[in-house]
Amino acid sequence: MSKPLDYENLNENVKKCQYAVRGELYLRASELQKEGKKIIFTNVGNPHALGQKPLTFPRQVVIALCQAPFLLDDPNVGLVFPADTIARAKHYLSLTSGGLGAYSDSRGIPGIRKEVAEFIERRDGYPSDPELIFLTDGASKGVMQILNAIIRSDRDGILVPVPQYPLYSATISLLGGSLVPYYLEETANWGLDIVNLRQSVAQARSQGKTVRAMVIINPGNPTGQCLSEANLKEVLKFCYENNLVLLGDEVYQQNIYQDERPFISARKVLMDMGGPISKELQLVSFHTVSKGYWGECGQRGGYFEMTNVSPKTVEEIYKVASISLSPNVPGQIFLGLMVSPPKPGDISYERFVRESKGVLESLRRRAQIMTDGFNSCRNVVCNFTEGAMYSFPQIRLPPKAIEAAKKAGKVPDVFYCLKLLEATGISTVPGSGFGQKDGVFHLRTTILPAEEDMPAIMASFKKFNDDFMEQYEDYRGYSRM
Amino acid sequence: MSKPLDYENLNENVKKCQYAVRGELYLRASELQKEGKKIIFTNVGNPHALGQKPLTFPRQVVIALCQAPFLLDDPNVGLVFPADTIARAKHYLSLTSGGLGAYSDSRGIPGIRKEVAEFIERRDGYPSDPELIFLTDGASKGVMQILNAIIRSDRDGILVPVPQYPLYSATISLLGGSLVPYYLEETANWGLDIVNLRQSVAQARSQGKTVRAMVIINPGNPTGQCLSEANLKEVLKFCYENNLVLLGDEVYQQNIYQDERPFISARKVLMDMGGPISKELQLVSFHTVSKGYWGECGQRGGYFEMTNVSPKTVEEIYKVASISLSPNVPGQIFLGLMVSPPKPGDISYERFVRESKGVLESLRRRAQIMTDGFNSCRNVVCNFTEGAMYSFPQIRLPPKAIEAAKKAGKVPDVFYCLKLLEATGISTVPGSGFGQKDGVFHLRTTILPAEEDMPAIMASFKKFNDDFMEQYEDYRGYSRM
Ligand SMILES: Cc1ncc(COP(=O)(O)O)c(C=O)c1O
Ligand SMILES: Cc1ncc(COP(=O)(O)O)c(C=O)c1O
Repeated sequence: MSKPLDYENLNENVKKCQYAVRGELYLRASELQKEGKKIIFTNVGNPHALGQKPLTFPRQVVIALCQAPFLLDDPNVGLVFPADTIARAKHYLSLTSGGLGAYSDSRGIPGIRKEVAEFIERRDGYPSDPELIFLTDGASKGVMQILNAIIRSDRDGILVPVPQYPLYSATISLLGGSLVPYYLEETANWGLDIVNLRQSVAQARSQGKTVRAMVIINPGNPTGQCLSEANLKEVLKFCYENNLVLLGDEVYQQNIYQDERPFISARKVLMDMGGPISKELQLVSFHTVSKGYWGECGQRGGYFEMTNVSPKTVEEIYKVASISLSPNVPGQIFLGLMVSPPKPGDISYERFVRESKGVLESLRRRAQIMTDGFNSCRNVVCNFTEGAMYSFPQIRLPPKAIEAAKKAGKVPDVFYCLKLLEATGISTVPGSGFGQKDGVFHLRTTILPAEEDMPAIMASFKKFNDDFMEQYEDYRGYSRM
Repeated sequence: MSKPLDYENLNENVKKCQYAVRGELYLRASELQKEGKKIIFTNVGNPHALGQKPLTFPRQVVIALCQAPFLLDDPNVGLVFPADTIARAKHYLSLTSGGLGAYSDSRGIPGIRKEVAEFIERRDGYPSDPELIFLTDGASKGVMQILNAIIRSDRDGILVPVPQYPLYSATISLLGGSLVPYYLEETANWGLDIVNLRQSVAQARSQGKTVRAMVIINPGNPTGQCLSEANLKEVLKFCYENNLVLLGDEVYQQNIYQDERPFISARKVLMDMGGPISKELQLVSFHTVSKGYWGECGQRGGYFEMTNVSPKTVEEIYKVASISLSPNVPGQIFLGLMVSPPKPGDISYERFVRESKGVLESLRRRAQIMTDGFNSCRNVVCNFTEGAMYSFPQIRLPPKAIEAAKKAGKVPDVFYCLKLLEATGISTVPGSGFGQKDGVFHLRTTILPAEEDMPAIMASFKKFNDDFMEQYEDYRGYSRM
């Protein structure tokens, strides 16, 4: 007799959901690593795992000092920690009741939610209400909480970009909702085409779905684009006309590599528009300590901010958050420090700026090395990474390669990425994990390997790709662009 | 037109779920606190918030040193940190790839899962497999992950004790399953009666439900009992006969206050039984850094261990865990330290033992003061707290009080607890938040207020209760026992 936790008896939504970032490729890479092969993990945007050093200031404050408040009484503490880090540690300890070891309010520590609101106001020029800000264990958990509040059944549709970060597809499956895809335009540097959006919604409606929300990822993962103000305006209007909540995944807002394409928050554009839309359109925006120049992925700190959401709904979301008591408190303090970093004049300011600039400038150079590297390869075309941490080249697979993949029982881009992994140790994620148009193939890699290793990695990729194309190209044709 | 995030359009399961620990009483207490009233928060088992000092050793290791690895190179570090804490910090850093700022494997850091397995083996005398152990952001998240894998629809029933910790009722609602209550026997010090269990299952089946899992909380929250070996054996057999997964919530396993009632894990009893049941019965056990003498609630560290669960199911649970990338890494290291504390001979050993014994012995005394205090009050009867952190006295409310509550539109125990809060600042949770038999009323308080404050708190309670009973008693009768 089969038992309740046997595979066949599990929740179907659990079985249905897919999560490619840690899928087949990742598992194979882990195996190879166990066997002693050197693996370059570019499958997850996990900067510290690839050698990025943590910023000194937050680690001193949060963490050394907040975790070890007895240090504050140690006569030697001044030898080890600058005075402003000690002051900030005392500040955060005063905001908690019981330090880092006590559950906080389930929405997060009120004093830190206030700091987040002040950050948003400085960034956008419009006040923000701490009561509409919830702190979370990373942005992922926030996205899951909001989608859980929205999705009632598989008749509820959520517009998600293709390609997308699979948090969205996986969570929608898990919650039993319906993903309604809209395609980003590769030839327009992954811009968002409103005509496409309309078609997607019309099609979903013709299938009896109620489209209730739209997700944008800006800057894009895996696609690296930064949405323009004009594009964001169109999106907001579209959501308003179609009565959709907009979920703005803005976790890469500090990862910007082209001065002519700054990050603009959906909230700022909405407020700039004024009029009824700015008072009615429901928007939830997400941010995290995992990205930017912080890259503090393991700490799990994030927030979401709700706009035009009623207190009654906020209360429901609060209630659900309280089931798991509170987000982790050290992560909350990281977030507080991220939104209120050292100021000019503070002892730690100069070091902080030096370190954070160092990270961002290097990322900018790496984005360039990678895009150029891919574009110099046979049958590979790649948009420039304007933001975020990824490169998403299109690989034009020859028909013979596609046949070979079929024979091996693999999706063609999985086939390509597995071969790349075996040959070079470079662990990427196949484009099919994010979604792509039929017959078009990509891979995603982060731009995170150490800058000095980059040229060797790109050379190794080029050699593999040359050999691969050599083997499978028969000059009869390619997969279409 | 109503908008997607308006209350009436939210997921019904979100609206349906209830979470009393931070419900009406808590909200009112927070309001009173804002108005300047001194509140004694005994509603949540949150030791540090009530003044319990964190243990020094883990804070030094994890957290000062792991968070601030640059300290390890500081010439002054030896002045501030004992040598064994430095060694342990280096050990944990070596288990991560990228320190605390990198996402770990979604199941948790392999080296720490191994430490957990070794702890379980030492505790139970049977080997444990790290591949069947997942680290989580506190036990709550683990429970939610497992229930999510089990529950497919409202036809799936989960046996939950009454009274219960509302994590279970709330999560089952949220996931759209059915709670199947079984009553604990107050007159048998909240023991578990198999006849009751059978009736509960029979009734659920007659309503067309498939009962798939059973939850035990041992030691109990809110009820404070420790299950005996004989009782556990009956439960295991019952689960085996009825093809149920047993979910063993053992988060209070270190909180034990009676030498004649030690904690015994469900897994040990199962293994001791031998034979087919020990190889077939599916069991998932939960633990946390939030309780015990650690009380590190804000860090969000926990684990679950699966027994007799197939690799295919483990893979599914892994996949779902990976959607939110990884549990917080500092919390994982706390857990590692909890399961492998300093050993005799280590520099930090003596201090560690002194501090942890101090916490536990004081809790034991407080359990006694509280039980005695309640039992000395008019119309109040209270079982002794054998384990966990709570006292759960029954309040025999006079009929007039019940009438007054009805007039005020309140559940009678909510009415009582609100009056207690207004009069004394003591913030408790009404028994109805945990479930209780019809017509019987309780409240739950933690035993966590500082020991020196305890006599005053109990005196203040007694005075309130006397006045309350004076006001409402008409000598015609009470709520039944
Ligand atoms: C687009 C996007 N959103 C959200 C997340 C989640 O980040 P976290 O949960 O670490 O905050 C990521 C992580 O890679 C991401 O790429
Ligand atoms: C019985 C029980 N289980 C689980 C938990 C959850 O603890 P945490 O999520 O902090 O590990 C609690 C917390 O109070 C509890 O009382």
